[in-house]
Amino acid sequence: MLSVQDNERITRTGPGTPMGEVFRRFWVPALLSSELADADAPPLRFLLLGERLIAFRDSDGRIGLLEEQCPHRHASLYWGRNEDAGLRCVYHGWKFGVDGTCLDMPAEPAGSRMKDGVRAVAYETHEAGGIIWAYLGPKDKIPPFPHFEWTLLPADHSMATKRLQVCNYLQNLEGELDTAHANFLHREFGENPVMPPPEVARKRFLIAETDFGMLSIGRSDLSDEVAYWRITPFHLPSFTLIPSAGETPYVFTGAVPLDDTHMWGFTVTWSPDRPLDEKELAAIRLDGVHGGVGPHVVVDPVTFRTEANLGNDYLIDRDLQRTGSFTGIPGTRVQDMAVQEDQDGPICLRHKEHLGTTDRGIVGARRLLLRLAEQLEQGIEPPQPQHADSYRIHSVAAEVPPAVDPIELWHSLQPVPAGTTTIEPAR
Amino acid sequence: MLSVQDNERITRTGPGTPMGEVFRRFWVPALLSSELADADAPPLRFLLLGERLIAFRDSDGRIGLLEEQCPHRHASLYWGRNEDAGLRCVYHGWKFGVDGTCLDMPAEPAGSRMKDGVRAVAYETHEAGGIIWAYLGPKDKIPPFPHFEWTLLPADHSMATKRLQVCNYLQNLEGELDTAHANFLHREFGENPVMPPPEVARKRFLIAETDFGMLSIGRSDLSDEVAYWRITPFHLPSFTLIPSAGETPYVFTGAVPLDDTHMWGFTVTWSPDRPLDEKELAAIRLDGVHGGVGPHVVVDPVTFRTEANLGNDYLIDRDLQRTGSFTGIPGTRVQDMAVQEDQDGPICLRHKEHLGTTDRGIVGARRLLLRLAEQLEQGIEPPQPQHADSYRIHSVAAEVPPAVDPIELWHSLQPVPAGTTTIEPAR
Amino acid sequence: MLSVQDNERITRTGPGTPMGEVFRRFWVPALLSSELADADAPPLRFLLLGERLIAFRDSDGRIGLLEEQCPHRHASLYWGRNEDAGLRCVYHGWKFGVDGTCLDMPAEPAGSRMKDGVRAVAYETHEAGGIIWAYLGPKDKIPPFPHFEWTLLPADHSMATKRLQVCNYLQNLEGELDTAHANFLHREFGENPVMPPPEVARKRFLIAETDFGMLSIGRSDLSDEVAYWRITPFHLPSFTLIPSAGETPYVFTGAVPLDDTHMWGFTVTWSPDRPLDEKELAAIRLDGVHGGVGPHVVVDPVTFRTEANLGNDYLIDRDLQRTGSFTGIPGTRVQDMAVQEDQDGPICLRHKEHLGTTDRGIVGARRLLLRLAEQLEQGIEPPQPQHADSYRIHSVAAEVPPAVDPIELWHSLQPVPAGTTTIEPAR
Repeated sequence: MLSVQDNERITRTGPGTPMGEVFRRFWVPALLSSELADADAPPLRFLLLGERLIAFRDSDGRIGLLEEQCPHRHASLYWGRNEDAGLRCVYHGWKFGVDGTCLDMPAEPAGSRMKDGVRAVAYETHEAGGIIWAYLGPKDKIPPFPHFEWTLLPADHSMATKRLQVCNYLQNLEGELDTAHANFLHREFGENPVMPPPEVARKRFLIAETDFGMLSIGRSDLSDEVAYWRITPFHLPSFTLIPSAGETPYVFTGAVPLDDTHMWGFTVTWSPDRPLDEKELAAIRLDGVHGGVGPHVVVDPVTFRTEANLGNDYLIDRDLQRTGSFTGIPGTRVQDMAVQEDQDGPICLRHKEHLGTTDRGIVGARRLLLRLAEQLEQGIEPPQPQHADSYRIHSVAAEVPPAVDPIELWHSLQPVPAGTTTIEPAR
Repeated sequence: MLSVQDNERITRTGPGTPMGEVFRRFWVPALLSSELADADAPPLRFLLLGERLIAFRDSDGRIGLLEEQCPHRHASLYWGRNEDAGLRCVYHGWKFGVDGTCLDMPAEPAGSRMKDGVRAVAYETHEAGGIIWAYLGPKDKIPPFPHFEWTLLPADHSMATKRLQVCNYLQNLEGELDTAHANFLHREFGENPVMPPPEVARKRFLIAETDFGMLSIGRSDLSDEVAYWRITPFHLPSFTLIPSAGETPYVFTGAVPLDDTHMWGFTVTWSPDRPLDEKELAAIRLDGVHGGVGPHVVVDPVTFRTEANLGNDYLIDRDLQRTGSFTGIPGTRVQDMAVQEDQDGPICLRHKEHLGTTDRGIVGARRLLLRLAEQLEQGIEPPQPQHADSYRIHSVAAEVPPAVDPIELWHSLQPVPAGTTTIEPAR
Repeated sequence: MLSVQDNERITRTGPGTPMGEVFRRFWVPALLSSELADADAPPLRFLLLGERLIAFRDSDGRIGLLEEQCPHRHASLYWGRNEDAGLRCVYHGWKFGVDGTCLDMPAEPAGSRMKDGVRAVAYETHEAGGIIWAYLGPKDKIPPFPHFEWTLLPADHSMATKRLQVCNYLQNLEGELDTAHANFLHREFGENPVMPPPEVARKRFLIAETDFGMLSIGRSDLSDEVAYWRITPFHLPSFTLIPSAGETPYVFTGAVPLDDTHMWGFTVTWSPDRPLDEKELAAIRLDGVHGGVGPHVVVDPVTFRTEANLGNDYLIDRDLQRTGSFTGIPGTRVQDMAVQEDQDGPICLRHKEHLGTTDRGIVGARRLLLRLAEQLEQGIEPPQPQHADSYRIHSVAAEVPPAVDPIELWHSLQPVPAGTTTIEPAR
């Protein structure tokens, strides 16, 4: 459990909040590249970390990310004209470049210097892996862009999607770190027993802090000869890699606050060695509602809302829940949303929870985030990896002999040489 | 009028509020039995006294009434599996019995004792008269279940319905206690004069406190030989019996807070001596909107919202209002809702009202409720009747000679012998 | 910019607020006469300056404007019976005259004097120019009704319309006073350049305080021989006259708060000398959405909501925005609403704005309003014109030689003799 005060601190990410400042030290996914495909196309408006923003791609293909309101009298730049290397407010014609520079104030007197003194608030962006990333923190603290593996691969090796989830970011992040729930929430039993066998259901949990965040580690003793390890990397501030094995593509998830009760859920599936094949792409395009599987979900192209949602009870099928599915809710992503979007409502009251041994990864992530927030209030910046390649890592799902050490196992399965990532022993 | 402070005290019934504590010393209607008919059927979720609750009927037909959130990490038990004598959370498989006992934590290690230390908050229920009642107070203060007459009769002697009303409970309770309004709000004139004759419209009002609550008493002097008495029992905390005479069935109403701006309105019609006949049942099934009469109302089977509501101006017919109906609004229940759901909005600003002589019952009920709240804050429990049969009473509507004492009149028309109910003289 | 405190003061107009008290010293438009056309018709309910009100026209054609809630137990008088020179509450039959007098309390005892002690809050009204005006201030401070020219003309010389605008009144008032925006926001370029030529776009701005409020004055130097003046009178508390020239009809606008985030926008077009002709009426009836032009807009007859609104992005046409219209939004009024209804949301955060030279009229109006609020808190009543004819004025749009003084120009074009209006030199 968290105290009421710590729950407030960890869930609030607006400007000026302690956790909001932590988020403002990292690059975060903001938009899919496909949302802002064309130069001089109409601007987009959206929320990010509680800030109202406008994004536009200028005549030269550069991306501008500005505060939504024109600095003059705060008309929305969403109505603006995206023209000739800048975005022009329709109220009085003030025009801004992608860096926030005011390029024109056509109603001011000839010779006026006023435009030199006015800037739109503008944030840095970086386009990689089919996503437009944003950095909303102080200019002098900007970190190098992290080398997530999938951002370095050809475009056909990965696919990114985005959904709106109506809850605080932490409820999703905790779900991604919670390797115990998969045996229950996502269980489709059919011919199998309704409940998972104990050797599968019961796990031991470890954590290890790293320079990019943390590893959340679960172990099931499947037999005297076989231990099954699932290792979920947690990248700061709110990203995870879902455990994958062998030829299975890897999956990145990012929980990005729009505001404190709405988040973008980014999901990226990638294969390091080859293009995603048709079957893998179909699993992404067809979510559980439409007969597919996996962590992606089909959304409305404008609102990014899922078809199955709290308003329609996530299309729960109570008959199916009795006969073949633990939840009766279609698809793993929607199942996750059903338990995450209403934990006391959009912000879980963590002072009333009762954590078990399965929640070790969650506890570790909370402590790490709260420690970073407290340190930043004292002027201590969050640690950043010494090399952007520290983010170029894989998750692990592997069956190995019982004596294997999980950290050694994890290192042995990483795509880049040891040494770029520092990691504590698992505990 | 009430002070702003007293209005706050009397209208707020959430956990920890003074009036909420008073409500938590009484059995209150929670659901219709028909809402939870089958064993192992999907659970229901609803609000009661500001608490989010889940109800389910287990494999043995027992009713469980639990806090909605699983005590683990607060996923909603609404998604839960109602299976084999318990409700199982779909997030991690924790399972709870109807008494809140944790029956299974399948992901915890073998031999873990953790489940012995975790309970779901569970409330007592009692099923009677077609209604599932709940007691949300301290276990050691639970009163015997009251013997409302209709809860002791064969099922075909009564019929219970429920509606959602979008206002504070007190606005409905005051309306039920207000015997003066019927001559106006519910007047259908047709061939009669638009206004009721003065000897009908003008009443004198008395109150008498009892061990179950209060009697609200109105007298019209129809002539020198005939006094017409209407006696409305007010059962604590928020129940009334609408005055009835002779062969007419009796009517119970209960105003039960979901939260401070929404209430369940329960209405029960019963006949002590015989099954309700077809005509009586039709009057219940066909409300005013659909050509019937009486205090029941047709609702949406899922939301319990009435078809005529504030959003459509209660289907007011302004032509009919001129030619045959005091309000032009169809049916007595909808007429009541029209004046109750918007008295300054869902919570009436009672510091601005101007009470008349017709409001004596309302004043008496408020004073009683506020006194109980104040006493309970001082550790003095609300008085409970010495016998559950004190609730086995009737309302009165009778024309008698002027000299008859109303309390004696009331005693003479009760179904159980004198002595089970204590009552003060009317004043 | 304004301080956060001053922004609060100037935008809040509910009962008891400093600016609300200023508004309560002036006659304000409340309803179109057409909304309350017939005697004994059903009452209307609406908000004005944060107060819930009921209007009705009694049997003698008099208008009553009462607090919505019956003073008894606060049922809404909207359900009331408009009958025989009064409005009767349907709950208990209390009846009120247009002046708030209680005419009947039919359930009170014969001989009761209670009704002499109860009054409904009633406000003064005045019907003129197709509008029902209201005065919500202290009875002893009521000013003479102002002689707006169009209120003195035959009915066919003017036409008044009303729309709901979802923002604070000040955002609309500022827009009306802002003579610089028309060259941009309302620009339809077609064959012309996208941007207005500098000699049109660039203006100088002056203000002059008057006994009715202020003049907001803009000057463009079209050539060495021609200065173009636009003079916008600002009538207290929130009315303006849009600049007009020659035979063009004049236009009055009024921004009237329903509450602090919704306003009625009244617009009146009038011709002093003749009936409006068919073409002029068509321009009013057909707004920009429907192929017309000008400051009126077609609304839903019940809600007064415009068809193009924030919920549908004001029907913006991004192709048209590139090829022929500065905004791509249909019609001047909807264009104004697009920039006004979302300046940080419905209440602009004026502490973050950056004002330019074009905002001089806006700054002057804010200072005037804040000064009146501060003075009224000190007991100094707002100055009222010495003669109601001070409101009988015209706006100005005129091309004249450079040396002409704007105040002299303004005086020379007014319909009533000099002397009724005092005015400071422009500065």
